[in-house]
Formats: sequence, C-alpha cells, structure tokens
Amino acid sequence: MRIGLLGTGNVGRALATGWRAAGHDVLLGSRHPGERGDLGLPVAGLAETAAHAQVLVNATPGGASVDLLRSLGAEALAGLPLIDVGVGLSDDFTALAHPNSSLGEQIQEAFPRTPVVKTLCTMDSTATVAPGDLAGPSTVFLSGNDAAAKRTTATLLTDLGWPPDSHLDLGDITTARGQEHFALLFIGIMGALSTHTFNIKVVREAGA
Amino acid sequence: MRIGLLGTGNVGRALATGWRAAGHDVLLGSRHPGERGDLGLPVAGLAETAAHAQVLVNATPGGASVDLLRSLGAEALAGLPLIDVGVGLSDDFTALAHPNSSLGEQIQEAFPRTPVVKTLCTMDSTATVAPGDLAGPSTVFLSGNDAAAKRTTATLLTDLGWPPDSHLDLGDITTARGQEHFALLFIGIMGALSTHTFNIKVVREAGA
Repeated sequence: MRIGLLGTGNVGRALATGWRAAGHDVLLGSRHPGERGDLGLPVAGLAETAAHAQVLVNATPGGASVDLLRSLGAEALAGLPLIDVGVGLSDDFTALAHPNSSLGEQIQEAFPRTPVVKTLCTMDSTATVAPGDLAGPSTVFLSGNDAAAKRTTATLLTDLGWPPDSHLDLGDITTARGQEHFALLFIGIMGALSTHTFNIKVVREAGA
Repeated sequence: MRIGLLGTGNVGRALATGWRAAGHDVLLGSRHPGERGDLGLPVAGLAETAAHAQVLVNATPGGASVDLLRSLGAEALAGLPLIDVGVGLSDDFTALAHPNSSLGEQIQEAFPRTPVVKTLCTMDSTATVAPGDLAGPSTVFLSGNDAAAKRTTATLLTDLGWPPDSHLDLGDITTARGQEHFALLFIGIMGALSTHTFNIKVVREAGA
C-alpha cells in the first residue's frame, strides 16, 4: 500500500520505518523537504505526499494539524483515508489543546469527505512500532465513522505488530476524545516510570 | 481505622462494604441521613461523619464536591487525610467538569491543611473493591502531595484487594489531572465492551 505520512518527527519516522519493513511503499511529507537532511526514508512536499498516498497519516504537531491539512485543500483529501495519530498539548505538556474535544473530531469536521480514523496516540513512538517488546500484550484503540477506513487501519496496525485481539474499536470519531484525553495520564505514568516506553492493556472481567 | 465516606452512591457504598469486610469501622455521610432508607451500613450527617473519621473519603458527585466540603468548613478537615475518588462529568458523560484541571487539585487548593490523595477514580465501583475478579492484574493510581497520607491510602488499597505491586504513585496532586481525564477513555471502552467492569494495566518494557 502507498502510505503518505505528514510529519517527519519521531512518530512519523517510526511509523514509516515500521510499515516499510512490512513491505509498504512509504513517503514522508514535510513543509520543507529540502531541509530535512538524510532521514533514511523518502521525503517529499506535503501536497506531493498526499497525491502519492492511498492512505494518509497525520503525524504533525497536534496544535498545528488542522491548519496544515487545510493548506492542502479539501479536494486533495476527499475520499482518502486519513489516520490521525496526533494530540495537541500545551508547550509544558500539562494541558490539552482541545479540552473536551479532540483533534480527530476537528479534522473530521473540517474534512467531511475524508474518512478519519484516530489511533496510535496512546503510546510513544517506540511502543507504537514494537508492541511485542513490552512485557505482555497491550491495547491499541480505534475511533472513526467509516468502517472501510477502520478495516484498512486495522490491517496496517497488524502489520506493525499489533495482533487483531489487541485492537479495540471504540466507535465513532467522537470517541477520539477519550484517546486524546489519555495523554495527561500518559504523562503522569511516564513521570512515575521514568520512561516513555510502556502501554496500557484493557483488563476485562474474568471469563468475559 | 475509622473511615468516613461522604456520599452514599454506588462508589461510597461499595468502598464502605469493602473496608468493613477488612475490619475497618466505616460510616457513610449523607446530607439527608434520615432519608437514606436501610443501606445495610451506618449512615450519619456529613459533619458527624467527618468528626468520626481518621480518614475521610470524598465519593460525592464531582461537580458538587468542593461546595459540599466547604459546607463542613476548613477547620473540620484540617490535618485529616482526604481520599478523593470523584470525577466531575457533564450530565451526558461526554465532557469533563474540570478540563485541564482536576477535582483533586481544586479540593487541595480549597483545603491547604488537608492532605488530599486522588485514587480509585479510573475504574467502576465493582472493580474498585474486587480487582481480583478481573482476568488479570491491573493498576491503581495515586496522586498527592503528602507522603504519609499516600502511605495510609496505599494500606487501605491493599485492604480492598489491590496488591502493593498494582499501586502506581504518579506524584503530586497535579497528576490527579491524568487520572480524571482518563474518564473519557473509560467511557469509550465501556461503550465498546458493553460493561462498566474492567480496568487498565500499565504494561512496561520487557525486562524493566
């Protein structure tokens, strides 16, 4: 699959590396592709990346994502599944940029013809692409309105090493709110454990 | 230990039952103790409950808790460890009453001489008092500024069935924000699983 990843930070690069290892054709999109140096991955402009992609991934800073996507134009994104992994936080990481809302919902509202799926925003870039390196199984969440886009996303999660029984579909895009609000608990756990690399597992009732 | 629990809802009653089973002297506090009917547990007024307690538990509705505690007066709560298990949510459960803040922080700010510990707000009342009935070990979080109050709280968590290695101390009371913000993800998971009874486990790196 041709996957375009907007954003060349830790998350975008880790996902691109993981999906390339699984055999996908990846392209990183940057506002300034000529200034990125050698990332060991193909890099292009944002519009070129969107045009190339069968699936687009938003891995840009959450506070800037909607404006950045608007710069591409709704037409360029119409019908293109968009996997949104961003979370908007204040500069000191103590507050959400979209309290009582979510970036996922705001992107979906801004681009009604683009099926948005929120996922992979509840763990760090290391765990995102190597869930099997954790001490046991853990959970990855999905939120979105479009069943086909969620199926595509689920396949791509499996390709990163997330077995199907680790996926938990929370429902429509409004449930992205829960995934993004977890960021503040993530930061607390990170402080307590002195590491970014962990995840959470949903533990059900015995026998359920 | 003499434990006073403010609030006679599911959470207050479940905690009182659990701690009584562990041998503690529990008293439920209600604004209208004469109107509660038979709860199978001792019930008194709020002020009497606070006066009786060596440890006080706030299990009142999160949106009303600060005003309710203020009605008792700061003097009545001075030096009394207060375990806060509340979360303020909108009536439709889609939004937080204290976005980018927390009830725990607001109680601590309103009662600077009362050591506040936030805990037990990331699971439902069933899992709170029967963590061993889940399919595997899971995590309970603590946040607070006072080490002695956190030790007392940890002992009481152990008495409910939470083994010490399931406790994760997130740090000072500002980390209550993460615990409370989890409420929106809790609601998403609850919808996906069609049950209130589950918890999350923090899964660390293998070998950590």
